[in-house]
Amino acid sequence: MRHLLEIDDLSPAELAEVLDLAEKPAPTGLLSHQGVGLIFEKPSLRTRNSCEAAIVALGGHPVAIFDNEIGLDKRESVEDITKVLAGYYSLLGARVFEHGKVERMAAVSKVPVINLLSDDAHPCQALADLLTIRQHFGSLQGHTLAWIGDYTNVARSLTLGAVMSGLSVRVACPPGYGPSEADLDHSATLSQHGATVTICRRPEEAVHGASAVSTDSYVSMGKEAEEAIRRQVFEGYQITEPLMAAAVSDAVFLHCLPAHRGDEVSATVIDGPRSLVFSQAHNRMHAFRGLVVWLLSDGHR
Amino acid sequence: MRHLLEIDDLSPAELAEVLDLAEKPAPTGLLSHQGVGLIFEKPSLRTRNSCEAAIVALGGHPVAIFDNEIGLDKRESVEDITKVLAGYYSLLGARVFEHGKVERMAAVSKVPVINLLSDDAHPCQALADLLTIRQHFGSLQGHTLAWIGDYTNVARSLTLGAVMSGLSVRVACPPGYGPSEADLDHSATLSQHGATVTICRRPEEAVHGASAVSTDSYVSMGKEAEEAIRRQVFEGYQITEPLMAAAVSDAVFLHCLPAHRGDEVSATVIDGPRSLVFSQAHNRMHAFRGLVVWLLSDGHR
Amino acid sequence: MRHLLEIDDLSPAELAEVLDLAEKPAPTGLLSHQGVGLIFEKPSLRTRNSCEAAIVALGGHPVAIFDNEIGLDKRESVEDITKVLAGYYSLLGARVFEHGKVERMAAVSKVPVINLLSDDAHPCQALADLLTIRQHFGSLQGHTLAWIGDYTNVARSLTLGAVMSGLSVRVACPPGYGPSEADLDHSATLSQHGATVTICRRPEEAVHGASAVSTDSYVSMGKEAEEAIRRQVFEGYQITEPLMAAAVSDAVFLHCLPAHRGDEVSATVIDGPRSLVFSQAHNRMHAFRGLVVWLLSDGHR
Repeated sequence: MRHLLEIDDLSPAELAEVLDLAEKPAPTGLLSHQGVGLIFEKPSLRTRNSCEAAIVALGGHPVAIFDNEIGLDKRESVEDITKVLAGYYSLLGARVFEHGKVERMAAVSKVPVINLLSDDAHPCQALADLLTIRQHFGSLQGHTLAWIGDYTNVARSLTLGAVMSGLSVRVACPPGYGPSEADLDHSATLSQHGATVTICRRPEEAVHGASAVSTDSYVSMGKEAEEAIRRQVFEGYQITEPLMAAAVSDAVFLHCLPAHRGDEVSATVIDGPRSLVFSQAHNRMHAFRGLVVWLLSDGHR
Repeated sequence: MRHLLEIDDLSPAELAEVLDLAEKPAPTGLLSHQGVGLIFEKPSLRTRNSCEAAIVALGGHPVAIFDNEIGLDKRESVEDITKVLAGYYSLLGARVFEHGKVERMAAVSKVPVINLLSDDAHPCQALADLLTIRQHFGSLQGHTLAWIGDYTNVARSLTLGAVMSGLSVRVACPPGYGPSEADLDHSATLSQHGATVTICRRPEEAVHGASAVSTDSYVSMGKEAEEAIRRQVFEGYQITEPLMAAAVSDAVFLHCLPAHRGDEVSATVIDGPRSLVFSQAHNRMHAFRGLVVWLLSDGHR
Repeated sequence: MRHLLEIDDLSPAELAEVLDLAEKPAPTGLLSHQGVGLIFEKPSLRTRNSCEAAIVALGGHPVAIFDNEIGLDKRESVEDITKVLAGYYSLLGARVFEHGKVERMAAVSKVPVINLLSDDAHPCQALADLLTIRQHFGSLQGHTLAWIGDYTNVARSLTLGAVMSGLSVRVACPPGYGPSEADLDHSATLSQHGATVTICRRPEEAVHGASAVSTDSYVSMGKEAEEAIRRQVFEGYQITEPLMAAAVSDAVFLHCLPAHRGDEVSATVIDGPRSLVFSQAHNRMHAFRGLVVWLLSDGHR
């Protein structure tokens, strides 16, 4: 049985299979009369609703379970909760703070576990982002993605998935907010078709030759206390029309949302013709559906 | 594509079509493998559960989304949230404080938006109320409804729907708690078959000739701070057995619930043989189902 | 129409029928296009999720309704809420504090009401426990269950169900924490096949000859204020390996969960080969499904 805790739980070929499945019609009976448990330690718009809709398309019944109901590691251990829920549901998803929690779930679960966002990784978002770029340009290989701003969990998973797919990544982050040595080593070991990760000093340098430009909030969930300092740090990292003009002529803009217009991106970019952010959000559903079909297919479960 | 933000988003003929559909069996495959997103800024018993049950009857999967999960206009704009959810769901409903929020949703949604209650309007309740009166008396036209007490959003939508259906309305409210000039002008423009709205000075005068008598809580959700003053203001506006006796001999009692026995209605009336309040509550489900069938039928979406 | 508020709402023969149905495949169309309302005054892992999964297996759509949404007896009376929901749903379940609330629901509901846990009774847990013992040993009759520690609502329902099934019970509880005279009288009137309830002074005495040993948390939900005193009171009542060794050689361990390793049970017992706690948790789903099938079968509704 397979889980998806980080994007490289898939091989490069398997990642491409999942994206292929995301573009196929839903096998509507796959989850008939079956439930799927979705645990949330944090609030969620896209994650919860894209997963719910994908499971419904497969004939299944999603059940969103909030942490105040079950008390992960407070009222009951992650392991006991997982063993119980794995007896009720065909699949489990969890949005947690500590990445270790989804690892502990996967270690004891008799059904597949999907990481719906941890402090370290957001593989479902990466699948949606790759799907969006692949749909728009027809392929990932040979293209370049620029990541500007905070190198969040979203950036980490996307970079790994990108290089696995032959999509190079150029990164521009303020000092201390970029990828670690371990991140760079990790992506280097996964690279296919000569894809590279390049650290750039300025956003203008990073977007050079990029087909897609992506960023994330300056102040992600849980970082509110650092808001003032982060506003200073990220000054100059806003994605603007002039910055987009420095990318390739048909470059697109991506953002996992929620976005803060005037902070990490200008309104003219995110609401302009180059923005794919709503297709990208909708691809959360398609990518998740493809992933579920893949995880439940013969040979993987 | 059509939305329902207020009852007069339907024409009089369309309103009758919706009521007709509410009395037909559910086309059980209409929403197969499709989700419906229901957003709640306020707590809800009847609204949430009648909508859930109606969607299930149509083969769909309702997803109740609470504002603390998504933060309408706080974590993310109403517009962005709507655009995202409209990509996942076949229909959106929302229970909001400011009516403007459902208008903003409808302006950007690619799927129908239904107002599940705003500070200004409660069209789904009005549909259920009209259905209940029509079922009981066989028709709406030529009958009279008395509205006593606070002229709430429920009263406003019901009055508009009533005069659109040829059902006259007689209103008795304390000074300052009745319909505005704009409300009266609005209903006058919608009137069919000579239906009128008459402002009466006393409840006894309003129920004269009425086939149905309706009221609402003195202290609606959000008005708790005004409770003491409202108790004084509404003294004498309780629906009692003697008041019901002043209506037509087979007059019925309606209330959108929750009711406060001893405040706006006596226990003997609401729990007595003239009370249709539970049929009316159940009609929330039937009316909503009819509305969804109508909105998703060819030519409307 | 039948309800299940306490296990003896079933006759002994009916209880066996429910357990038989729990072992049969789900009639997957039983609840097609129908919703089931599940009301929760307390948080819940197993109860909510086992019920959701069981209803989904029957083709139905469960709706978990939390008390902060509806305000049982605060915003609206239990009776009004029940009458409204019974018009939307084919079945109602409720997890409440006061047992009287489920009784009041059943008194006015036109659909079956199931007690999902009250301060007095937990019949769905008892069904799962009996199913687990019956599956393991092939029968209930002639076996003995030891209940050690706090004689909770779980203990009460299980004892009643046990003696109804010919399963004797041996109880060891600290003074003041055991069954009341009324409890003992009640179980005596229900006893079948000579099953007895024996009060023992020490855990070692209670487990003598027992095929199954069960306990519950020292500090159940709502008893947190008494934690310090309860820790003293229950000293010596932990289920340990030596205690299990005093039972029959193939004795099994049961616990309704959540468990507190090192308090009421040692980790070696609950995580050891004699523990059936996760099968027991999964049987919550199977038992509930059997119960629903039974309640909705011809002749019972």
